[in-house]
Amino acid sequence: MNKMVICCAFLMVSFLVSAEDGSKLWLRGKAVSAEVAAKRQIVIHSESIVVGLASKELEQYWAGSSVELIVDKKLKKLKDGYTISSSGRGLTICAGEEIGLLYGAYHLLRLQQEGKDLQRIAIEEIPDYDVRMLNHWDNLDGSIERGYAGQSLWKWEDLPRTISPRYAQYARANASIGINATVLNNVNASPQILHSDYLVKVKALADIFRKYGIRVYLSINFSSPKILDGLENSDPSNKEVQRWWKSKVKEIYTLIPDFGGFLVKANSEGQPGPQDYGRTHADGANMLADALKPYNGLVMWRAFVYSPTKEDRAKQAYLEFMPLDGQFRDNVIIQIKNGPVDFQPREPFTPLFGAMRQTAGMVEFQITQEYLGFSNHLVYLAPLFKETLDSDTYADGSGSTVAKITDGTLRPAYKTAIAGVANIGEDENWTGHHFAQANWYAFGRLAWNHALSSEQIAEEWLKQTFTDEQQFLKPMIHMMMTSREAAVNYMMPLGLHHIFAFDHHYGPEPWGDRQGGRPDWMPWYYHNANSAGLGFDRSATGSNAVSQYFPPLDRIYGDLETCPENLLLWFHQVPWSHKMKNGHTMWEELCYKYDEGVQQVRQFQKVWDGLESHVDSQRFAAVQSKLRIQAQDAIWWKDACLLYFQTFSKQPIPYDIERPIHELEDLKKIKLNMSYHN
Amino acid sequence: MNKMVICCAFLMVSFLVSAEDGSKLWLRGKAVSAEVAAKRQIVIHSESIVVGLASKELEQYWAGSSVELIVDKKLKKLKDGYTISSSGRGLTICAGEEIGLLYGAYHLLRLQQEGKDLQRIAIEEIPDYDVRMLNHWDNLDGSIERGYAGQSLWKWEDLPRTISPRYAQYARANASIGINATVLNNVNASPQILHSDYLVKVKALADIFRKYGIRVYLSINFSSPKILDGLENSDPSNKEVQRWWKSKVKEIYTLIPDFGGFLVKANSEGQPGPQDYGRTHADGANMLADALKPYNGLVMWRAFVYSPTKEDRAKQAYLEFMPLDGQFRDNVIIQIKNGPVDFQPREPFTPLFGAMRQTAGMVEFQITQEYLGFSNHLVYLAPLFKETLDSDTYADGSGSTVAKITDGTLRPAYKTAIAGVANIGEDENWTGHHFAQANWYAFGRLAWNHALSSEQIAEEWLKQTFTDEQQFLKPMIHMMMTSREAAVNYMMPLGLHHIFAFDHHYGPEPWGDRQGGRPDWMPWYYHNANSAGLGFDRSATGSNAVSQYFPPLDRIYGDLETCPENLLLWFHQVPWSHKMKNGHTMWEELCYKYDEGVQQVRQFQKVWDGLESHVDSQRFAAVQSKLRIQAQDAIWWKDACLLYFQTFSKQPIPYDIERPIHELEDLKKIKLNMSYHN
Repeated sequence: MNKMVICCAFLMVSFLVSAEDGSKLWLRGKAVSAEVAAKRQIVIHSESIVVGLASKELEQYWAGSSVELIVDKKLKKLKDGYTISSSGRGLTICAGEEIGLLYGAYHLLRLQQEGKDLQRIAIEEIPDYDVRMLNHWDNLDGSIERGYAGQSLWKWEDLPRTISPRYAQYARANASIGINATVLNNVNASPQILHSDYLVKVKALADIFRKYGIRVYLSINFSSPKILDGLENSDPSNKEVQRWWKSKVKEIYTLIPDFGGFLVKANSEGQPGPQDYGRTHADGANMLADALKPYNGLVMWRAFVYSPTKEDRAKQAYLEFMPLDGQFRDNVIIQIKNGPVDFQPREPFTPLFGAMRQTAGMVEFQITQEYLGFSNHLVYLAPLFKETLDSDTYADGSGSTVAKITDGTLRPAYKTAIAGVANIGEDENWTGHHFAQANWYAFGRLAWNHALSSEQIAEEWLKQTFTDEQQFLKPMIHMMMTSREAAVNYMMPLGLHHIFAFDHHYGPEPWGDRQGGRPDWMPWYYHNANSAGLGFDRSATGSNAVSQYFPPLDRIYGDLETCPENLLLWFHQVPWSHKMKNGHTMWEELCYKYDEGVQQVRQFQKVWDGLESHVDSQRFAAVQSKLRIQAQDAIWWKDACLLYFQTFSKQPIPYDIERPIHELEDLKKIKLNMSYHN
Repeated sequence: MNKMVICCAFLMVSFLVSAEDGSKLWLRGKAVSAEVAAKRQIVIHSESIVVGLASKELEQYWAGSSVELIVDKKLKKLKDGYTISSSGRGLTICAGEEIGLLYGAYHLLRLQQEGKDLQRIAIEEIPDYDVRMLNHWDNLDGSIERGYAGQSLWKWEDLPRTISPRYAQYARANASIGINATVLNNVNASPQILHSDYLVKVKALADIFRKYGIRVYLSINFSSPKILDGLENSDPSNKEVQRWWKSKVKEIYTLIPDFGGFLVKANSEGQPGPQDYGRTHADGANMLADALKPYNGLVMWRAFVYSPTKEDRAKQAYLEFMPLDGQFRDNVIIQIKNGPVDFQPREPFTPLFGAMRQTAGMVEFQITQEYLGFSNHLVYLAPLFKETLDSDTYADGSGSTVAKITDGTLRPAYKTAIAGVANIGEDENWTGHHFAQANWYAFGRLAWNHALSSEQIAEEWLKQTFTDEQQFLKPMIHMMMTSREAAVNYMMPLGLHHIFAFDHHYGPEPWGDRQGGRPDWMPWYYHNANSAGLGFDRSATGSNAVSQYFPPLDRIYGDLETCPENLLLWFHQVPWSHKMKNGHTMWEELCYKYDEGVQQVRQFQKVWDGLESHVDSQRFAAVQSKLRIQAQDAIWWKDACLLYFQTFSKQPIPYDIERPIHELEDLKKIKLNMSYHN
């Protein structure tokens, strides 16, 4: 009897060990044997924790020659980067800062996992951005705004006493791709995060993350002085308020000496801010910057502002912030969403990039797929990130890409930064969809080196996460590379945007309307479908948002004939009969694009199913299941949008296209219960 | 104000007039103008109501030359058929019976609607069956068992006082295609139908139908004597019982002198019957036949019997009835479902056809689509009907088709008959799906002339019901002709059968099982999926049902290598790896067939949508909507069956096939609320 119990227990353990739940992310190196370890040495010259960690990772997983880790404070040009070089005796990693050695160690392990040639190595890596940051939109009650991978990782109730092992796993994963900053809480911030009770919890996390080179930041509520401590107001010109912030910042830095700073959403979507007291964004940001400056802390001040006025929502950030250019402290960075509306499947870049010549700006991407099928759809985001980063603003002439504007090349800054809204939750596999891990990975890799190609990142990630077999890699790289365009096709092709279902933003609702609701939250505000055509006229005859772009973009975007077709309906209200470059009318092209999206997802299913033998059964089945949902959703999107827009175009869907299988009236009745999402 | 009311009223009327709700069926001739009518004469020589009706139809709709209607009692060889001939003065319709003239008149009007050349006509039409009968499975409470076009047409509560105009419309439609018999009530019969209160209601209907040559029949409950009048039992050897039936029959014929007879479901699925008293089907049928014989009434005794024994359900009718061959009265006809199980998408013919050499047999088809997608799926049934009628039983050597066995050619009979379970309800368009009208039409036409091709019937029906434009006809005939095979493909290809969801028989439920339920009501009883293969072994190594067929069919069906592939899984348990004629394995072929079904329905959608300009908007939209449901259902079927059978085959679905978009476990949870169906 005893024997049997033992046997069962053993089986269970072995099952748990072999279960491929995705929890290991891309960190799947195998521990080396004592025999292999005995053949090489990992040499360090420091007792620092970070260097010790670098050594420990190599001791455990590095199967190559000996490695020496050297910190040389003179190597300032490397920033927190590193060099790796080979000689007869083995490899040497050099860095100007200790953390550089950890990054170098992960680089080596990545090369090993990728099966790269490790004989002759001569690598120099200098990160493109100083601050490579995740924004967690996690609430203190454990929910996550726009989170689709379960509840928050941060167990605020258990902290600081109970420390989940996942905190260190999280930090290790981030360090392995160079992420060095994390904002723990939602930009719609609870004032409570600054309460002393919470700061000791934050400290507990910061103490763990520090070992991995990660600084903690917090989102703050601008009304915190009034709410937390009963000040009369939170007016930035109020000396008491200023004193309150100074004192609070001091309290934080006493607990967390390497605290990063504040992320602020102010006077946006109902959040309090300096405008409540007749002050400007600059007044508010500078007050916080002054409090943080003695500690080298930063203020990330978000440009995501818009009001329900008559002015085109896409223009408002520019209109509010441009007059303030030059008024911000040097430790303030304006955090600007990649597109001027809101993380849509496709947007042009926000025209603020490059336009603010005397103010630091940074890009905010959304890694979590609020507008891209949550954690149900396989959408690889590197191409979306790259599309913004590589966009030429023409601010300083041709070649003034968003990347060069924000990475310090064209606009030297106190600190450069880049942020991604995290897609991480407490799900076993961290991100809900196994392939959403790739978006976390890609954000980190691009924050380090925005010149990396999307293909290269996909290949790296696939090799580490799944297998390096070519029969698997080739089709899967292709799938990942086309997946974002597929989503654009079946959701919002040709520059359509924000025709999502109200609030949850999962499915289609181009017909969406709410009595008395804000127009700029209604799909009709964005698509403007009528019997004449479709799209938002942002040309000179319309909102003239094109004028916010530097020449020649204002002209290119502003002219129906030169506007890129993938942004056509963003910038123009286009007649249904408008001839596209391929000879289709706009209506026909819209139909073909939606259908192409559906067919692309069908193809993804075929490819994935055909690769079953290359993937463990657990992840195979999970991804297969998600792709089925994606296929259903793609058909849903196509049918909803085409049947709805057809009520305006009054034209048949081209007959060679797969026909709708839904009734518009039935689709209008769908109400998803999304309460578990925020 | 008054003006406006009038105006609105006018608009409403004109809307109602132009509304194409399908209520006109295939009878869409336009009333001729007085001018046209004046140019020709309709000449009759009889004051009979039926002849008057024939004349009236021609007066109203015939736009050709003069027509003379002649009854010649000597023309017995025509039965209730007719000739139509042309001469210089016009056309002549001759018939041996008055009703023949009405049929002839409808024939002329059909030719006119089809746009046929009417100059030189020489037609002789003799019906293949004497009794061309609809079976209504209508309950006295207005519900219809397996009815999908609304409640029953028969308003029992209002009868006999209130006469719906639809009774005459129904009769006219039937007469126009030669149907001359109708069983008003469900074979699962309420004894109440024989109550005197109900018989006066039946008489009211019979009085209307008589004008159109239609005789009324009733389904009877075998326990009626006991239940209605408290007899000790309903034992056919009980003289009191025999007297009761004689008296009841007399009562009926007093009210309805041309009453047709009884349809009986006895000792089947819980219905009472002679076996309850140790008597045989012959004892029961003969008792009724003796009562009816003085009035020339008929007994249709159903062979649809099976018990939850160990014996293969498909064999049981044969086993029960063969020993009784020769024991039935000549006015008894054994009514046999086309297939040995139950109106499946595809079955072989029932082996009783031809086997009973001294007993009259007739085919029972199901026009209502219990197993073919209800009134949601476009499935043209003429090919299914023809498949049975043209099946060679080899009973009297090669060429002994079911048609020839039942139409009197090979087995002279007192009366020949054919029945179809009606798909008619109170829906505006009669049959729920506009294209289900074609199945009513096709049954009538084949009951008259089983040599007609399915294409010809489809063309006739389309021309009359929609349009005679060739651009419409060609693709629609093709769609109709392939529609039944498409349904077989996406529901139950290769001879699979009865894997429907429990009770309602709409969707797939191959996994279906009920604790303690009858095995022969469970899908696993029929598909026998296991790790070895799929299908029901009815060969000599299995239930040996093949032995019930005449040589060489027993051999052909019994051998895996010669068995027609479209019946393979009906007759054999086939290994998953069995090589099909095209080189696929059985599993692969199963997958391709399911997929083919889905793609066929997608193609139907494309074709229909492309014909929008040829169809009125109301019927266009209605059919388009039904095709969307059919497409969704086809995918549902395919996914459910392939994902379920895959748990046994353990093999991938071929990768070039469109992938499933559902999860098996989700599909298992689907419970349709089918309470409005019976």
